[in-house]
Amino acid sequence: MKITEVRVILTCPGRNYVLVKVMTDEGVYGVGDGTLNGSELAVAEAIEHCSHLLIGMDPQRIEDIWYFLYHHTYWRGGPVYAAAIGAIDIALWDIKGKLANMPVYQLLGGAARDKVLCYGHAGGRTPEEVEESVRHLQAKGYRVIRAQIGGYGGSGMVRTQPPPRASIPPTQYFEPTPYMLEHVKLFEYLRKQLGDTVELCHDVHEQLTPIQAAWLAKQLEPYRLFFLEDPLPPEQIGSFALVRQASTTPLAMGEIVHNRYDALPLLQNRWIDYLRCAPMHIGGITEMRKVAAVAETYGVQMAFHGAADLGPIAQAAAVHLDMVIPNFGVQEWVTFPQEAYEVMPGACEFRDGYAYPPERPGIGLDINEELAAKYPYQRAWMPLVRREDGTMHRY
Amino acid sequence: MKITEVRVILTCPGRNYVLVKVMTDEGVYGVGDGTLNGSELAVAEAIEHCSHLLIGMDPQRIEDIWYFLYHHTYWRGGPVYAAAIGAIDIALWDIKGKLANMPVYQLLGGAARDKVLCYGHAGGRTPEEVEESVRHLQAKGYRVIRAQIGGYGGSGMVRTQPPPRASIPPTQYFEPTPYMLEHVKLFEYLRKQLGDTVELCHDVHEQLTPIQAAWLAKQLEPYRLFFLEDPLPPEQIGSFALVRQASTTPLAMGEIVHNRYDALPLLQNRWIDYLRCAPMHIGGITEMRKVAAVAETYGVQMAFHGAADLGPIAQAAAVHLDMVIPNFGVQEWVTFPQEAYEVMPGACEFRDGYAYPPERPGIGLDINEELAAKYPYQRAWMPLVRREDGTMHRY
Amino acid sequence: MKITEVRVILTCPGRNYVLVKVMTDEGVYGVGDGTLNGSELAVAEAIEHCSHLLIGMDPQRIEDIWYFLYHHTYWRGGPVYAAAIGAIDIALWDIKGKLANMPVYQLLGGAARDKVLCYGHAGGRTPEEVEESVRHLQAKGYRVIRAQIGGYGGSGMVRTQPPPRASIPPTQYFEPTPYMLEHVKLFEYLRKQLGDTVELCHDVHEQLTPIQAAWLAKQLEPYRLFFLEDPLPPEQIGSFALVRQASTTPLAMGEIVHNRYDALPLLQNRWIDYLRCAPMHIGGITEMRKVAAVAETYGVQMAFHGAADLGPIAQAAAVHLDMVIPNFGVQEWVTFPQEAYEVMPGACEFRDGYAYPPERPGIGLDINEELAAKYPYQRAWMPLVRREDGTMHRY
Amino acid sequence: MKITEVRVILTCPGRNYVLVKVMTDEGVYGVGDGTLNGSELAVAEAIEHCSHLLIGMDPQRIEDIWYFLYHHTYWRGGPVYAAAIGAIDIALWDIKGKLANMPVYQLLGGAARDKVLCYGHAGGRTPEEVEESVRHLQAKGYRVIRAQIGGYGGSGMVRTQPPPRASIPPTQYFEPTPYMLEHVKLFEYLRKQLGDTVELCHDVHEQLTPIQAAWLAKQLEPYRLFFLEDPLPPEQIGSFALVRQASTTPLAMGEIVHNRYDALPLLQNRWIDYLRCAPMHIGGITEMRKVAAVAETYGVQMAFHGAADLGPIAQAAAVHLDMVIPNFGVQEWVTFPQEAYEVMPGACEFRDGYAYPPERPGIGLDINEELAAKYPYQRAWMPLVRREDGTMHRY
Repeated sequence: MKITEVRVILTCPGRNYVLVKVMTDEGVYGVGDGTLNGSELAVAEAIEHCSHLLIGMDPQRIEDIWYFLYHHTYWRGGPVYAAAIGAIDIALWDIKGKLANMPVYQLLGGAARDKVLCYGHAGGRTPEEVEESVRHLQAKGYRVIRAQIGGYGGSGMVRTQPPPRASIPPTQYFEPTPYMLEHVKLFEYLRKQLGDTVELCHDVHEQLTPIQAAWLAKQLEPYRLFFLEDPLPPEQIGSFALVRQASTTPLAMGEIVHNRYDALPLLQNRWIDYLRCAPMHIGGITEMRKVAAVAETYGVQMAFHGAADLGPIAQAAAVHLDMVIPNFGVQEWVTFPQEAYEVMPGACEFRDGYAYPPERPGIGLDINEELAAKYPYQRAWMPLVRREDGTMHRY
Repeated sequence: MKITEVRVILTCPGRNYVLVKVMTDEGVYGVGDGTLNGSELAVAEAIEHCSHLLIGMDPQRIEDIWYFLYHHTYWRGGPVYAAAIGAIDIALWDIKGKLANMPVYQLLGGAARDKVLCYGHAGGRTPEEVEESVRHLQAKGYRVIRAQIGGYGGSGMVRTQPPPRASIPPTQYFEPTPYMLEHVKLFEYLRKQLGDTVELCHDVHEQLTPIQAAWLAKQLEPYRLFFLEDPLPPEQIGSFALVRQASTTPLAMGEIVHNRYDALPLLQNRWIDYLRCAPMHIGGITEMRKVAAVAETYGVQMAFHGAADLGPIAQAAAVHLDMVIPNFGVQEWVTFPQEAYEVMPGACEFRDGYAYPPERPGIGLDINEELAAKYPYQRAWMPLVRREDGTMHRY
Repeated sequence: MKITEVRVILTCPGRNYVLVKVMTDEGVYGVGDGTLNGSELAVAEAIEHCSHLLIGMDPQRIEDIWYFLYHHTYWRGGPVYAAAIGAIDIALWDIKGKLANMPVYQLLGGAARDKVLCYGHAGGRTPEEVEESVRHLQAKGYRVIRAQIGGYGGSGMVRTQPPPRASIPPTQYFEPTPYMLEHVKLFEYLRKQLGDTVELCHDVHEQLTPIQAAWLAKQLEPYRLFFLEDPLPPEQIGSFALVRQASTTPLAMGEIVHNRYDALPLLQNRWIDYLRCAPMHIGGITEMRKVAAVAETYGVQMAFHGAADLGPIAQAAAVHLDMVIPNFGVQEWVTFPQEAYEVMPGACEFRDGYAYPPERPGIGLDINEELAAKYPYQRAWMPLVRREDGTMHRY
Repeated sequence: MKITEVRVILTCPGRNYVLVKVMTDEGVYGVGDGTLNGSELAVAEAIEHCSHLLIGMDPQRIEDIWYFLYHHTYWRGGPVYAAAIGAIDIALWDIKGKLANMPVYQLLGGAARDKVLCYGHAGGRTPEEVEESVRHLQAKGYRVIRAQIGGYGGSGMVRTQPPPRASIPPTQYFEPTPYMLEHVKLFEYLRKQLGDTVELCHDVHEQLTPIQAAWLAKQLEPYRLFFLEDPLPPEQIGSFALVRQASTTPLAMGEIVHNRYDALPLLQNRWIDYLRCAPMHIGGITEMRKVAAVAETYGVQMAFHGAADLGPIAQAAAVHLDMVIPNFGVQEWVTFPQEAYEVMPGACEFRDGYAYPPERPGIGLDINEELAAKYPYQRAWMPLVRREDGTMHRY
């Protein structure tokens, strides 16, 4: 059995996606997703470049192809390659599932649970609005809910400067103190209003310094978070020890970790409680499964990234893994644009706070290429964030 | 799909084996091996006991059943439970492979190599006899060869005391000095006679103290071993640091490690180069795969135990994994009694120094229950070893 | 003097027990207990298997036999072997005591105290019921009392699913949040009602993640526990550092630790305050005494496991040790079914919160084999616990 | 002053290069190089994508633009982004130098030395040929010379399999033993023939396991290498401790390290003697200067990568840094295709074993765009290497 073609499909049904379709000489094909928000074209070129070498290879040899993809660039690591490998890897598991006539989670070892606990995103401009948003999610069945004032940084985003030209993102200006103070009050308020049992998360989005993150984790301790997400940027992983010792607030990290070895200090030192990589962004199912095994060894649970910056196929890859890995913690959950569901029909179902993988063979989704072609790629960039004095900050 | 019966088959076609057959309501069944040399009856009871709870479970949910088996005893760990779980786990992968119509290595990710490098056992009473034995294995295609004078301990086994009764093993008396001196000379001799390129191993069989092991590893360094196996007993894993720093002789360990957490210090501290567990003895394919991922993370290769104390089904489970794991190093290889091949037809092939997994769906072997019944279990024990002064030593 | 027979007595006087009787050519015999709840048959086979080799050995050479038993299986470690060795070891100490005409504690060094402080189990469905239960135990003389809502996990056990067949245990479903919140409130309530001086324990029964355990230990800190027991499963011993730094709540661990080397990180890192192994479950008096010496070295006290999953003989083995070891902390205490006391006459006495070893030679108990035979083994399993989403959890 | 355009110039004058030209509203422009061998198209897209945001920015604010580029992708790290940032950063330094009317090294602090010691590449099929090649380089003035049999892996490259299609690279098959044995003999031979004073390096090219690398470093110790390069792949940086303790052979690492934080363990633990990143591959002059400062802190010298996989502009960026940094060690040196010198006129001079930076303002080189357009990009891939059994290996 041979790979005959690797099609890269750049499409924007509401958002940009980098999709792949791996075709074979036996008719069966696999679909994958390598979307890297704001870097779609680089990923597409990375896939296109390696696709020439994939022609003629046996798509059943996933492990072999994974290491071939990993090593064929010599320089390695980084989100662009990881997403390119992830897209192809998901497509190969899709093919294998179709060959076996089994959904992917069956190939991975079979269901270790009945359904996949999800967490949703609540937000608002005031504590009252956030409370309302949490209650709205509770009504939909969510048991775990992320709460933020504003998007990221809350009223720490002290002002916004319009972009110099249309299509360019505006610049936001961030100061940590108002953000930190406001969110301590938010969680005090939410616990008072919502009681003890709802599970609440918060995403710092890597915007604090180590000692600020430690301070915030400690101040939030009385409100018993489910986890505090991304308290530090990946460059300061070595400072997790500081945040860790400051409180018993559970810590989550990983949505911009794209490599097993970058995650290793977090796991080996038991500095976090939830590893939040996306399977697609770390090299696909093949690699994510191995990283999950390392995490399990150190008592760390998986909470796969599942924001809108990935699509329904990548989401399904995560849910198939969620069904199987022993150290599943929670799955981040969002709804995609309707057009995206149409371009990628067959998405996971969500009912009463839980996700369910497709029961069709393989990943369970398809790509409607004709429809995808109607939504051409729209150049876009991530938000820009600076400090009040103009210093470049992190989004 | 449901498990309807778990048959435990104790049989002795040349050696004792503890086999299992997991039957389902859809006719398909799986075979497994949980042989624990000298503890067959305890393993058989452990399997028999949990089998009552397995009836009615879905055999496709391997991950779930694994954790069920692991936790249902509350007390956990140790070789008896690990082998019991291993036997059932292999049988469940056999079922899944049959359902998918694929050999197990395909389910695990597909072949990452074309064939499985094996090492064989050379021995003799003198260096000259060992040389002859090595050359004999080279003629069969072996590129990696373990060399020992005697079985384990060589002429360090200074005398043997006949057993008090028939059927009871005799007691051997061991002194480390003659063993160590003789084996330094052996490898000096072998390198001189055989040249630089043949890959040579040696198995200490956990018979030395930490500083003796360090001494031996250093003395053998000029002869460039492929690995020095089991230099220390598992109780002294903490002394691997000592052996490690003494030389650049590659170190292997693990045939009596039956638990991920027992192996972890060896991996995390990068104290060894090859982890030598048997999949069957650590809880089967499900667990071995995870441990292999941890080992890979720390740059440790796998060299699965494959002595005569496990059977053709357990050997095939190892070879399926060998085909897939990226950090494969080498596979220990032995030939089984002819009767064992008949009781368990369909074993892996061995050609020119390499093993090949069965290409049939599942594990690829079957159990001839009628024939197995003709070879009833023969009570047997492991060898006993004492020191010259009568102190109980380790086999 | 020679061992002539090792009788394994499986009996169920109210509960299953695995008892042994080591017979000698001089008439004197020893009794031991190797009960491993839910794994009785595997332990019985392990004892039966090694018993063949024991015939003819001198029962006075306890140290020698201990290492012989430990090494004769080659694969070693794990609860099955540890219990098998433990049973025989206790019986050998019984013989030696009878030969010396002394109770075992005299042979071990003689009494270092007059009586053995015990802790009892209080429980109930509400804080008020638990308070009543505590007061009831106080009235019996207990100074140290373990308090739980429900058995383990309290109202975290959110539902129970009836078993598919009679004789199979039901499945309970556990969620950590209600359990944790409720027990913080319980201890706040108990301290308020009962005052400062009663010593209170709590058993987490390994049901939490590391950060949850750290949170709970910290929340309970104001209520000054005597100890918090088994906050983590043995696989996550490496996370005790996290729990340790979170609070000054004393920590206890060990009822499912069956090996000196598994306990070592807890001791060497001074991560716990009480080591809670059962002598029977770690290889008997011979091994427990050494482990206690290591614990003493690191300032850790002993609090031997003494639940209903072991019997009066194993209890007596613990109490003999309790009388002697300098680092005695407390002894867990339960009452056995009346039939068990009849099958194993001569149990320790309990008066006013303290236990007293039998003053008869040896262990001080006997086995009524005729009566034991009237209570045949009843197949039984440990409880099963899953998470709300169906994930296999730990009992 | 504003950036008005960022031109990406993909050209293949003998080899593929990704060049940039940053245009400003004041006529002055800067040139940079972001070549990432085998991933040129992905880097080009990454530059093109961010170039839209650069329009209108002040090119004098290099530090600001650096962090803007680093953070604007949110996902960060990895060679593709690092090369994209590196290309722009070099161009911005070129602009600043032109504005100051100074060569870049003057802006960086001025010359700390008169000339830049270089090392060249000697090779051959036999020790005799390598000796001849070394002598040839010595005649050109080289004092430090890298010696290899073959390219990488020597006769460890046991066979080559022709590619399935033209334009696809062939697959080489590597075995470590012949490579290691041969290179020990090579350096024994070279020392004997060439005497003690010539400085000799060797590049392992990440092809060994940790213990093999330790063995080789130890065996080569008597021949006093200037450094042993890339003994381990970047995934196994944690094993440098093992290689380090085995010998006093100086160690170099870094040509595929593209991130400050990946290099940090090598520096902080003082595991290496020379850090071998390329400025272009780690984010340009701005970042390389800081990494050099960290390296200096830990006593590590810089030996910038300077192989043919980067071009004359990137080489000049390295040489400007080499002139300034206190912890300069040596500069790798190659000659480029004549066409490349024509497309990028103004390259550094090399005389008598030393390089000299251009003394013109800025970087000192230009890009002949018209000529570049005559050499269109030629799709190409890195070599592929497998093990003898077919396992994917590292190039």
